[in-house]
Amino acid sequence: MKRPIGVIDSGVGGLTVARELMRQLPKEAFLYLGDTQRCPYGPRSEQEVRAFTWQMVNYLLRKNIKMLIVACNTATAYTLQELQENLDIPVIGVIEPGARAAIKVSQNKRIGVIGTEGTIQSKAYPRALQSIDENIRINDLACPPFVPMVEDGMLSGPEAEGIVARTLQPLKNMNHIDTLILGCTHYPLIKGLVQNEMGNHIQVISSGEETAREASLILSYQGLLNQSEEDPVHEFYTTGNMEKFRSVANSWFDQPVQVLKRIRLDHVQSSAI
Amino acid sequence: MKRPIGVIDSGVGGLTVARELMRQLPKEAFLYLGDTQRCPYGPRSEQEVRAFTWQMVNYLLRKNIKMLIVACNTATAYTLQELQENLDIPVIGVIEPGARAAIKVSQNKRIGVIGTEGTIQSKAYPRALQSIDENIRINDLACPPFVPMVEDGMLSGPEAEGIVARTLQPLKNMNHIDTLILGCTHYPLIKGLVQNEMGNHIQVISSGEETAREASLILSYQGLLNQSEEDPVHEFYTTGNMEKFRSVANSWFDQPVQVLKRIRLDHVQSSAI
Repeated sequence: MKRPIGVIDSGVGGLTVARELMRQLPKEAFLYLGDTQRCPYGPRSEQEVRAFTWQMVNYLLRKNIKMLIVACNTATAYTLQELQENLDIPVIGVIEPGARAAIKVSQNKRIGVIGTEGTIQSKAYPRALQSIDENIRINDLACPPFVPMVEDGMLSGPEAEGIVARTLQPLKNMNHIDTLILGCTHYPLIKGLVQNEMGNHIQVISSGEETAREASLILSYQGLLNQSEEDPVHEFYTTGNMEKFRSVANSWFDQPVQVLKRIRLDHVQSSAI
Repeated sequence: MKRPIGVIDSGVGGLTVARELMRQLPKEAFLYLGDTQRCPYGPRSEQEVRAFTWQMVNYLLRKNIKMLIVACNTATAYTLQELQENLDIPVIGVIEPGARAAIKVSQNKRIGVIGTEGTIQSKAYPRALQSIDENIRINDLACPPFVPMVEDGMLSGPEAEGIVARTLQPLKNMNHIDTLILGCTHYPLIKGLVQNEMGNHIQVISSGEETAREASLILSYQGLLNQSEEDPVHEFYTTGNMEKFRSVANSWFDQPVQVLKRIRLDHVQSSAI
């Protein structure tokens, strides 16, 4: 099936998921849409996140995508179920893959979750984890400084280390978790800082790798894998500054971003069509 | 959905998969059927493996299972597609999960596979790997001594180390793989020996953990997860010696095997019904 796979995110964070998707599914073509202009979604209301997400989805549906990846935890927390109920293509979020991966590696069933205010307030991770195993104990923590820090390119150095240490302090004082889910697609960019702060005995889960694996399984399971021999062409859309997007994207991918377009979403319908 | 999940294997090796299934899906009830009497399947013809597998499947279908896990690589290699085409419940094998996990972790795209003669001759792993990424290079090797070694309980010591070293020699002399798939559900029992022999720079993939994760995803994706609060009761069936089976099973599970029955399969239909 040569149709492309749509990937949506509030901005550039979802590129960590896209990179894994392209690495694990090298025959597939991806359309990436980052709503950079209206990023971050974390502090926004549920209603707003749902409207923005539907605008992205409706934009990509016109491009005949065969699968949708919601590469943003906040959007997944608020819209995944609604999208799955309304679309007739497979829809994969980033929360359940992270939850299943954590259940796989945790030995003591005490799992930490960090994310944006929206993701943590939604309790989507505790729900996903406990629907599979109700004996799991969860410590979750909103980390509002992390997304702006990553967006500003502050990925290392004493100041970044200080912010990470101060923000994670409440989690370190709590129960003895053995696994920590990075519940925001920006966080893999500071995975090293988080790992150092939490200690090497903690297994840190990036949902990008896990989501890519689950996408691969669903494509295969539903017979949707691309069989064509041609090299895929990926397309990127941003609602914000193109040069800023290009520079981040180029630093993350092995090959330069070829097709990049600036788009407007304000006239796209903000609910199911 | 309170219906149980069926797990079939040529013998006791699939218990490594069952253990992971029970750990990662603690609310689900499993029916495990091990064809111990006719084990090993590795050296048998495709026709024979298919007939034996259908007998196991038809036996479990009568018990109203909601999903089937083929926890035997040889049976998966020969029958998975046929089972998926003929059954109206989800059918999961152990080969694709292992392949996807290897693609996730391999950095240099050179992947080793070890398994029984049947599994290696079928080329099921190279097919699964290359259908996703045709640039992957594969070195596969049949290891006939490993299943009898594990069945005899020889899991450590100088003799076991010697057998593993001699058997794996051809793989060590080949291309520089960075990932090795244990393509037989008996092999996780000697994972330590294999890891020592291959070196710590090789990532060793056990398909049990991966299969359990994929089963979890498919159950969730299809709305089949058990929502009941009752503790599940697992049942075990063997075609061979009950005491031998019980002793292996008890040594692998946290709690003693409660329900264990000896069954006969020779009168069960050996093809799709």
